[in-house]
Amino acid sequence: MELKTRIDSAIQQNIARARVAPAPDQLARALDYACFPGGARVRPTILMSVALACGDDRPAVADAAAAALEIIHCASLVHDDLPCFDNADIRRGKPSVHRAFSEPLAVLTGDSLIILAFDILTRAATHEPQRALGLLSLLAQQTGMPNGICAGQGWESEQSIDLSAYHRSKTGALFVAATQMGAVAAGHDAEPWYELGARIGEAYQVADDLRDALYDEKTLGKPAGQDDLHGRPSAVEQFGIKGAIQRLNDILSGAIASIPSCPGEAILAQLVRKQAEALTPVTPAVAKA
Amino acid sequence: MELKTRIDSAIQQNIARARVAPAPDQLARALDYACFPGGARVRPTILMSVALACGDDRPAVADAAAAALEIIHCASLVHDDLPCFDNADIRRGKPSVHRAFSEPLAVLTGDSLIILAFDILTRAATHEPQRALGLLSLLAQQTGMPNGICAGQGWESEQSIDLSAYHRSKTGALFVAATQMGAVAAGHDAEPWYELGARIGEAYQVADDLRDALYDEKTLGKPAGQDDLHGRPSAVEQFGIKGAIQRLNDILSGAIASIPSCPGEAILAQLVRKQAEALTPVTPAVAKA
Repeated sequence: MELKTRIDSAIQQNIARARVAPAPDQLARALDYACFPGGARVRPTILMSVALACGDDRPAVADAAAAALEIIHCASLVHDDLPCFDNADIRRGKPSVHRAFSEPLAVLTGDSLIILAFDILTRAATHEPQRALGLLSLLAQQTGMPNGICAGQGWESEQSIDLSAYHRSKTGALFVAATQMGAVAAGHDAEPWYELGARIGEAYQVADDLRDALYDEKTLGKPAGQDDLHGRPSAVEQFGIKGAIQRLNDILSGAIASIPSCPGEAILAQLVRKQAEALTPVTPAVAKA
Repeated sequence: MELKTRIDSAIQQNIARARVAPAPDQLARALDYACFPGGARVRPTILMSVALACGDDRPAVADAAAAALEIIHCASLVHDDLPCFDNADIRRGKPSVHRAFSEPLAVLTGDSLIILAFDILTRAATHEPQRALGLLSLLAQQTGMPNGICAGQGWESEQSIDLSAYHRSKTGALFVAATQMGAVAAGHDAEPWYELGARIGEAYQVADDLRDALYDEKTLGKPAGQDDLHGRPSAVEQFGIKGAIQRLNDILSGAIASIPSCPGEAILAQLVRKQAEALTPVTPAVAKA
C-alpha cells in the first residue's frame, strides 16, 4: 500500500469513530472537512518512513501515531485560520473551516480533533501499552506548553520573542514529534531521532518563509505575504531570498547526516532528499524575486 | 488535608510545569489565570470523593485525575466565553481570559489546557500504567466527539437538537468522567459509577438553568439570562420554576440511591446531599420569581 493511502485510511477510520450517532451533524462534518482532502501529509509521511526504517513491527501502532499526528496538525490549522489569528478565508484551496461552517464550529473542530488525537493513541495501547504511553507523552510535549506548537503561537503575542524557542516550538515541534513517534511506534528509542526532526523542522520553516514571500495566494492555497503583513520574523527577512535557499540546502544536508543507524537508513535519506526537492521553491518564482 | 487544598495543589503543580522557561510569558500567565482562583471545584471534588470512597490506594493517581478533569473544565470555560460563543466579559467574578489577555491567547489557553490534561494523565502512568490508560480513555470519551462536552456545544449549532444527547454531553459528560475517573484512579471498575455521575450531571444542569433564570450577573459571577437570550432549551422553560426545583430534588435522591456498594458509601451519600443543598437556589431568589 502506498504511504499516503495507508495514512489517509488511518485518519479516515478514526474520524469515522468520532462521527458515530447521535453526534451533532455539522460538527461531525466539520471534523471530516478539516482533514480531507489532506495536504501533502508531510508529518505523518516522515513518521511512517521512520517507523518503516525501524522495522515497523507493529503497523497498527504506527498507523495510530500517524493519524494522531496529522489530526493534531489539522486542528492547529483550523485554529490558526480563525479571525483572531490569520483570519484566513481559504486553506488547502477551499474555504477555511470557520468560513465553510462557522466560527463556533471551527473552535469546536480544533478542540475535538486535539482530543481525538490523544484518544487514538490511548486506543493503540490495546496493541502495546508502553509504546502508546511513550507516544502520548511525545505528542503532549510537542503540542502543548511550554515547548509545543501552542507555545509557538503564544510567542506571537509577546513583545520580545525568543526566536530560537519560537521556531523550535512553532514549526519544529511537530517534525520532532514525527521522527520520534515513528521510532517509538516501532519499538525504538526516541532520543536519537530528535535531531533529524529538528533539522527537517528548521528546513520546513525556511521553505515556508520562502513560499510566503515568493508565491501568490492561488499557488499557496492560502493567503500569501502573511509574515510581512503580521510583522513576523522570517528567514527571508534575515538572509534575503538567495541566502535563505542556501540555508535550506545546508540544513537538509545536516538532516540526512543525522539519521541514526537503522535497517532503512538509506531509504530514509532518499525520502529526506525528495522532501528537500519538494520544499525548495521552483526557479521561476525565485527568478521573479 | 482538606479536599480543596489537595485539588488546588495538584492543579498548581501541573500548571507550573507548563510554565517552565523558555515559555511565552503571557500564555503562561493565562493558563494560571484560567485555573486560579478556582470556582467550587465541583467535578474534582466528586472525583476525589469517589476515589476516597473506593480506598484511594494510589493518591498520586487520584491527584492526577482530579487535576486533569478540572483543567479540562477550565479549558471549556475559556472557550465557551469567547466572543463567538457566549461573548462573556466576566467569569468567576473577574474578566474572562479573552478580556484580560486577548482572543488569540484565550484560544491558545484552551488548547494548551486540553493538552495539559492528557499530559498529566500520561505522566500518572509512572505510578500505574493500566489505570492511567483507563483514565485517558474516560477523559477522551467525555470531552471529545461524539459524546463529550465538545459534542454538547456542537449541538447548539444544529437546527434540530437531540435534547437527551445534548444535555448528556454538554453537562453530564464531565460528571460521568468525575465519578468514573475517581473509581478507576482507586483501582475500581468504571461502569458501576456511570449512573451516579449521570444523575449528578442532570441535577447540575437543572440547577444551572434555575440559577440562570433567577440570579443576576453579580450573584452568578457571569452574565445571567443566557439561556433565554440564546434561545437554549432549559428545565425552567420546560417545567417552570417550582417544577424544576422538584425535579432537581428527585434527581438527587436517585443519585444517592445509585451509589455502588463500597467502603465509603455513607460518606459519599452525605457529600451528594451537601452538593444538593449547594445546588438548590436560595429561597429569596425563588420567592423573587
